[in-house]
Amino acid sequence: MTQQYLLVFSCKDTYGIIAHVTGFLSENQGFIRELSEFGDPHTGKFFLRCLFEFPQGAPDLAAFFKKFLQVASRFDAEWKFLESSLKPKTLILVSKLGHCLNDLLYRQHNQSLKLDIAAVISNHNTQEKLVQFYDVPFIHLPMTSDHKAAQEEKILSFIEENQIELVILARYMQILSPSFTAKLAGKIINIHHSFLPSFKGAKPYHQAFERGVKIIGATAHYVTQDLDEGPIIEQEVIRVDHSRSPEELVSIGHDIETQVLARAVKYHAENRIFLNGNKTVIFR
Amino acid sequence: MTQQYLLVFSCKDTYGIIAHVTGFLSENQGFIRELSEFGDPHTGKFFLRCLFEFPQGAPDLAAFFKKFLQVASRFDAEWKFLESSLKPKTLILVSKLGHCLNDLLYRQHNQSLKLDIAAVISNHNTQEKLVQFYDVPFIHLPMTSDHKAAQEEKILSFIEENQIELVILARYMQILSPSFTAKLAGKIINIHHSFLPSFKGAKPYHQAFERGVKIIGATAHYVTQDLDEGPIIEQEVIRVDHSRSPEELVSIGHDIETQVLARAVKYHAENRIFLNGNKTVIFR
Amino acid sequence: MTQQYLLVFSCKDTYGIIAHVTGFLSENQGFIRELSEFGDPHTGKFFLRCLFEFPQGAPDLAAFFKKFLQVASRFDAEWKFLESSLKPKTLILVSKLGHCLNDLLYRQHNQSLKLDIAAVISNHNTQEKLVQFYDVPFIHLPMTSDHKAAQEEKILSFIEENQIELVILARYMQILSPSFTAKLAGKIINIHHSFLPSFKGAKPYHQAFERGVKIIGATAHYVTQDLDEGPIIEQEVIRVDHSRSPEELVSIGHDIETQVLARAVKYHAENRIFLNGNKTVIFR
Amino acid sequence: MTQQYLLVFSCKDTYGIIAHVTGFLSENQGFIRELSEFGDPHTGKFFLRCLFEFPQGAPDLAAFFKKFLQVASRFDAEWKFLESSLKPKTLILVSKLGHCLNDLLYRQHNQSLKLDIAAVISNHNTQEKLVQFYDVPFIHLPMTSDHKAAQEEKILSFIEENQIELVILARYMQILSPSFTAKLAGKIINIHHSFLPSFKGAKPYHQAFERGVKIIGATAHYVTQDLDEGPIIEQEVIRVDHSRSPEELVSIGHDIETQVLARAVKYHAENRIFLNGNKTVIFR
Repeated sequence: MTQQYLLVFSCKDTYGIIAHVTGFLSENQGFIRELSEFGDPHTGKFFLRCLFEFPQGAPDLAAFFKKFLQVASRFDAEWKFLESSLKPKTLILVSKLGHCLNDLLYRQHNQSLKLDIAAVISNHNTQEKLVQFYDVPFIHLPMTSDHKAAQEEKILSFIEENQIELVILARYMQILSPSFTAKLAGKIINIHHSFLPSFKGAKPYHQAFERGVKIIGATAHYVTQDLDEGPIIEQEVIRVDHSRSPEELVSIGHDIETQVLARAVKYHAENRIFLNGNKTVIFR
Repeated sequence: MTQQYLLVFSCKDTYGIIAHVTGFLSENQGFIRELSEFGDPHTGKFFLRCLFEFPQGAPDLAAFFKKFLQVASRFDAEWKFLESSLKPKTLILVSKLGHCLNDLLYRQHNQSLKLDIAAVISNHNTQEKLVQFYDVPFIHLPMTSDHKAAQEEKILSFIEENQIELVILARYMQILSPSFTAKLAGKIINIHHSFLPSFKGAKPYHQAFERGVKIIGATAHYVTQDLDEGPIIEQEVIRVDHSRSPEELVSIGHDIETQVLARAVKYHAENRIFLNGNKTVIFR
Repeated sequence: MTQQYLLVFSCKDTYGIIAHVTGFLSENQGFIRELSEFGDPHTGKFFLRCLFEFPQGAPDLAAFFKKFLQVASRFDAEWKFLESSLKPKTLILVSKLGHCLNDLLYRQHNQSLKLDIAAVISNHNTQEKLVQFYDVPFIHLPMTSDHKAAQEEKILSFIEENQIELVILARYMQILSPSFTAKLAGKIINIHHSFLPSFKGAKPYHQAFERGVKIIGATAHYVTQDLDEGPIIEQEVIRVDHSRSPEELVSIGHDIETQVLARAVKYHAENRIFLNGNKTVIFR
Repeated sequence: MTQQYLLVFSCKDTYGIIAHVTGFLSENQGFIRELSEFGDPHTGKFFLRCLFEFPQGAPDLAAFFKKFLQVASRFDAEWKFLESSLKPKTLILVSKLGHCLNDLLYRQHNQSLKLDIAAVISNHNTQEKLVQFYDVPFIHLPMTSDHKAAQEEKILSFIEENQIELVILARYMQILSPSFTAKLAGKIINIHHSFLPSFKGAKPYHQAFERGVKIIGATAHYVTQDLDEGPIIEQEVIRVDHSRSPEELVSIGHDIETQVLARAVKYHAENRIFLNGNKTVIFR
């Protein structure tokens, strides 16, 4: 199969952006497979994702990228070119519950999720065997309140040493410090087990039970300093009724948590997500 | 078609309730068409709805009901028997937006919603012609802040004089006084244009836009003194994305508002809803 | 509000199409609001829809369109430019059931659907009053088998005389002749009350009941000579269970029929649909 | 936690069934936790599922069941009492694709699915390691056309020797012989990767692609002699669009296949399903 390339590009919205970008690609024998764009009239920002290939053979890519600088600088853009097959180097953090972890590992194994999972770190060892079954390194870092800061340091060191590009909180029940999340802005995805902004904080299914909602949900979002307030990536819901106990809501909810997190990670891994203030633009 | 009857029944949960109720029905030649029950382990309350008929001919109903008193008093139950074809006498309150109103009127017209609509009252006359088209009385009560109390009095008088059993707020943009809602507890249904408890209060679609949610919703609930906090009857959601403006969310939301309100009203009209504290038990 | 314009464009997929089209727009001070494209690797066809405006004032549009001929002919494209606010001149055909018709008329009335409805033609007069309420001409053409051809002729004459651009079969229970549908290829939308290709033909809800499906659906599609085989535009489903009678399925289904047809008509009216063989490309 | 018991019961619909059944339970200090019933007016059959417990201590169960014979024989019923915690002894058949298998094994492991999995039999060894990770016996029975009958014999022997109560075809790509499926009527569940009755037979996602449907689905059903025609247990769907290749439909479909199969197996394992001709009655 022909190698495909991705351009992700954002700048202030104005005249001629698509013309210049696609003009550059066609002048250089790039054949466009997919192009998605969005100009946000509220923020004045423009976003573009373009998947392309070189049916006549790839040019000198270094020269190609360098030439593109002219287009990008014209619009003062943030951008990157990359091979579309590149897999982000990923760290998964998990506590005891394994449903999201199992799902992510299986999807990575059967190639429906393109991740390069460097390790799973957990404050418990409940999931050790499962992780090892998939030949992924498992690191057990028990969390106790008096050395929480020290543990975060160890995680950060791992991230830096291994050039981790994506951190997934797959039901990781520890609150991260503002400095930790700030360092990983836009690179750390959490699954919250409610339909945000409903039921922030602890025990959302029990909150949902108390309120008597007829539909429950799950939300994947980028983590920011403000708990459960980060940019939303994906949400899903499922219908419930009066007969469900809080424990049943928890169990039913696991299914949508796994789906929502898997989709959010897939969008991120495929470079489909742009941050737009505290919101996301997602080209699916 | 054979006349069908409904029994709705609730009491403290204990042994033998279903046995006694259904025993009474079968001893009196009642043939059960549908029976739904729920015992709530959290509140200790029991709820039952039973649809039945008399294939061998109905007995003396007054005597039948009187005999049932023994069963009901044994369990200290709240209950009522009624012909299943009875339509609740209904008042609709509406402001300018007519999508829910049009939907309710059409459903009542084509018999998919069994309501006896006594009148539509509005603080505007925008919907007057539509209401008249369906031969429903339209009462224009313009609301101005200085005589809001007087207006509520007029609405209450109408309700009492016409023995209104159900009030529907079909996008009625006036906040009702606590005394008004207290008098109509369990008999007044509102449609809120968000997935409660998210985005209470004004302009929920704009709130949803600001938060960047990926799914929007609508909620039908009984009205209580606490705005947007009453028992939830029905909810529905629809997927949206980054490209939708607040105005588009409003427009998309209209569709789920009409569906959610119609379903909630149908459940109420068919005596499918029980209040269970601040929650609802609904036998669909 | 600034006038917006649409370009819809399709051709054989190749290098540089987007570059040339958007290059032309930006050279002529067109500011792109939305651009969607799809290159189909299976058919080799390319489709583009672009919404744009002239913030600095519109140019001489006739000259603008004429200049574009060079771009279009380079790619041997099918294309049209139009004001985005243009409403297609529409004819609705209906039989007795009015749920879809009522929904379309209301949406047109409240501007959520941008149609210029020239008339409603029916083989019954059941819906006459409703149509007249919305000040739309109602034409009663009773259909009897011996002059079916004559009736189709009258409908076709109306279409030609009134330059009808879109025909909606809003639960029109007459089978149209191949010559009729051939003349209106890509311009006539039907709502079928099943999830096609399941349950083609008559009484689909009864077929669904017999098969015991757990979800029912509705499908809007362009009409072709082959009954229920035309290009699918939109589908929607709803969950049901064993307790539903065929009559209840019919009633439940009405809700999804109205939604599906309204969405399909909206996509068509907003020039979001391209035919791609016997399939549709839809830019939502 | 108190041990709970299930009664599943079906007979010809008539007067007094619920009264007699629940009368018996309450006379014997059975406290009802859940009761669901359905009388089918089309087939004249009645179905009941009742979950109950003995808060005052369980009676002599053998005597209890024996006494119930009087009630059951009065209505000539098919019935069984069982401990609600009983797990059906289960055999899973799988070919190469492991997404459903992995999901079932994980759910059994984390107790959200109550199964006693005796073995996984496969015509390939692709899933051997995964099965062994969960400490479930894996039996490799390669299928070649000339000894297909012999292989079915081996599977049947395993079923008989191990008193298998449920067989799950978790993407098992072999067609079973009529005699095999006849022996396991009502005990063998298949997942078909389409929204039946659409796209029966081979390569349903490719069929869906060709037809251009806007929603794809999956169906779990009991297996009968007629391929893809057995009683439907559960269905689920997901929205797709023109941009999806057949391969992407396959991948997207995997997610709904796993959910649908897991739900169907859960309903079966919890004795929630009754056969009603070629349809199912499911008390959820």
